[in-house]
Amino acid sequence: MISVDDIRDAMSRIRPFVHRTPLIYSSSFSRLTGAEVYLKAESLQKTGSFKVRGAVNKMVGMGTDKVIAASMGNHAQGVAFAAGRLGKDAVIVMPATAPIVKQEATRGYGAEVVLHGSSFDEALDYALARRDRSFIHAFDDDEIIAGQGTVGIEIVEEIKPDIVVVPVGGGGLIAGVSVAVKSLSPETGIVGVQARAAVSACLSFEKGKVSESLSHSTLADGIAVGKVGERTFEVIRRHVDNMVSVEEDSIAMAVLLFLERKKLVVEGAGATPLSALMEDPGRYRGRKVVLVVSGGNIDFTVIDRIIRKGLVKSGRIGVFEVTVEDVPGTLHSVTKIIANHRGNILGVFHDRLAPETPLGKTRVGFTVETRGSGHLDEIIDDMTTKGFEVSKKG
Amino acid sequence: MISVDDIRDAMSRIRPFVHRTPLIYSSSFSRLTGAEVYLKAESLQKTGSFKVRGAVNKMVGMGTDKVIAASMGNHAQGVAFAAGRLGKDAVIVMPATAPIVKQEATRGYGAEVVLHGSSFDEALDYALARRDRSFIHAFDDDEIIAGQGTVGIEIVEEIKPDIVVVPVGGGGLIAGVSVAVKSLSPETGIVGVQARAAVSACLSFEKGKVSESLSHSTLADGIAVGKVGERTFEVIRRHVDNMVSVEEDSIAMAVLLFLERKKLVVEGAGATPLSALMEDPGRYRGRKVVLVVSGGNIDFTVIDRIIRKGLVKSGRIGVFEVTVEDVPGTLHSVTKIIANHRGNILGVFHDRLAPETPLGKTRVGFTVETRGSGHLDEIIDDMTTKGFEVSKKG
Repeated sequence: MISVDDIRDAMSRIRPFVHRTPLIYSSSFSRLTGAEVYLKAESLQKTGSFKVRGAVNKMVGMGTDKVIAASMGNHAQGVAFAAGRLGKDAVIVMPATAPIVKQEATRGYGAEVVLHGSSFDEALDYALARRDRSFIHAFDDDEIIAGQGTVGIEIVEEIKPDIVVVPVGGGGLIAGVSVAVKSLSPETGIVGVQARAAVSACLSFEKGKVSESLSHSTLADGIAVGKVGERTFEVIRRHVDNMVSVEEDSIAMAVLLFLERKKLVVEGAGATPLSALMEDPGRYRGRKVVLVVSGGNIDFTVIDRIIRKGLVKSGRIGVFEVTVEDVPGTLHSVTKIIANHRGNILGVFHDRLAPETPLGKTRVGFTVETRGSGHLDEIIDDMTTKGFEVSKKG
Repeated sequence: MISVDDIRDAMSRIRPFVHRTPLIYSSSFSRLTGAEVYLKAESLQKTGSFKVRGAVNKMVGMGTDKVIAASMGNHAQGVAFAAGRLGKDAVIVMPATAPIVKQEATRGYGAEVVLHGSSFDEALDYALARRDRSFIHAFDDDEIIAGQGTVGIEIVEEIKPDIVVVPVGGGGLIAGVSVAVKSLSPETGIVGVQARAAVSACLSFEKGKVSESLSHSTLADGIAVGKVGERTFEVIRRHVDNMVSVEEDSIAMAVLLFLERKKLVVEGAGATPLSALMEDPGRYRGRKVVLVVSGGNIDFTVIDRIIRKGLVKSGRIGVFEVTVEDVPGTLHSVTKIIANHRGNILGVFHDRLAPETPLGKTRVGFTVETRGSGHLDEIIDDMTTKGFEVSKKG
């Protein structure tokens, strides 16, 4: 098992290549949760995630010049970046189904991307079989763990927290952070967070031994790992005080809160510590809590969906259907009401052949941008008063 | 006109209340533009914008306890925050049409929001007429200018830039920053940026006197001001080296780049300095350039639109129409092609009554999420090969 000295060594090795990320006090999250909340913003790290710390530490003293890794995510970019800066030659294996945007981000750091197989496991098997290159594991490796642990040293050099909350997939980050924090500030509690959709580390923690758990689709794709590492679990078992899991809805809400209140783009995995605080505020109230915001690499199609959901939930976008007489001019009289209230029509769906509509009536669906839920209600009330039958959708 | 000593005084007065924001080197923007690019991230400032600096400086030594301001934007939140921290009683006047989200953000800092009139000018007139309260101007005030100037001191305390690029609306920020920078680093050039939709400061700079210019709708709503200030213009005329204006499309692109590459949420106004670099890279190439990222308060409905546009532009979302035989099963054969290529259908629009469609044919519109433009082309090519007539939309 690694020691804090290994992490200190890692610190001096990686310092020229990576950012010391800011530790940001958040008054809005503190108000929201009742805790004293600080954010360790690894989303602002090189390549947009902490993974680059472990990758640099692993590769900086490596004898070989040819490395290989399998990853569709932050580890791919971390290894690619590290190889570029250290003058090494990196191959990153991804399944053929990997999003082009991830392939291109990895190529952008100078690595060669090899597409192999149709699942991550097939890509991984291929990478492991390539005997001509040194394989860089994403988490279950002492030098990787020591590199990620530098996050923990940076935290306790600035403040002495009561609790540090860390996202957990394979366990590399929390293993490194917990060794650093428990060595330098033994009173500080360490809480690990997983998405409810991928709970191998939680299950293993409960059972006291490494246990697999099928990983389902989750917003926190960065920590969707089916099996926690052997080495990382040894550390987790010894140093971590608690493991919790959080729901998809609260991950989405946390991503939205980071965007709205902190002006930070945070990926699902990086938002899970805030979800943990929101789901169980009693545990953290009045305590000095550091949330490790592990990364910011969220897909824009995902952000788009999260924002849309948030806009509908807060009433900024209203979706409703109006049943009207099927005679000329009625659609016009409905749009007039929306215009009078200064609602902004984003979409209209008009299906006069819908089978569930009575003869002589037609149903029109609207998507309208409003000033908020009060404004939306005002528009709908006015329509109802004027004799239209309106039903709100979501 | 204010001096650098006024700004130093402001610095010590506001320090307990506002953040010293990070100055962040951006390797991706440096690669993109050929300059050595640093970001002064006022988007991470309290209230999400630099405006709080001027507001605190204005109000910290004020004899009166009752203040009033007219604003729908960052000045409203700046004054509300400052009043809350300084134990003063603030009224913010907004037109009745102000977005509820802006009203609520201002109330959230403890100010009273008064809705008056239907335009900003009507709200402003009302605020000016309220003799029972001290009016806080958004920019044309020496203490406001000195407060904003603290941004400039913080920059030159960290590096000596060749050029500082500053967004300009009423001119408070650039006036303060240029006094600070020119006093402490006389060789540094100052460039002001406006949106092409609101160019009063550019026009005034060109003509040598304050000139009005109708302000049109722009993504950079934070700097959409019809007339630059008298006091601010005196400083701009003396200290600013150049004024430029930028297009809406490049503002949208800059907002997207901040989100994607820097994981920062930046409002339109705050993104204009990056637009200026992208529109005229030759001017900045090889120089050490600081972009003043003035704020992060962008409306989610706006972000949503910018992201959608960006996704369509980069091919991550494809919109196309397919003309098919109007017989049972054809829609199914089209969706099968999309499914085979693992495209994700977000929306279908099927209008068999469209007048321009030949008899016996029908046209179906698809919105499909893809892995990138290559993937979209692959889907469309396959359809064409299979005999469907496809036209790409946007």
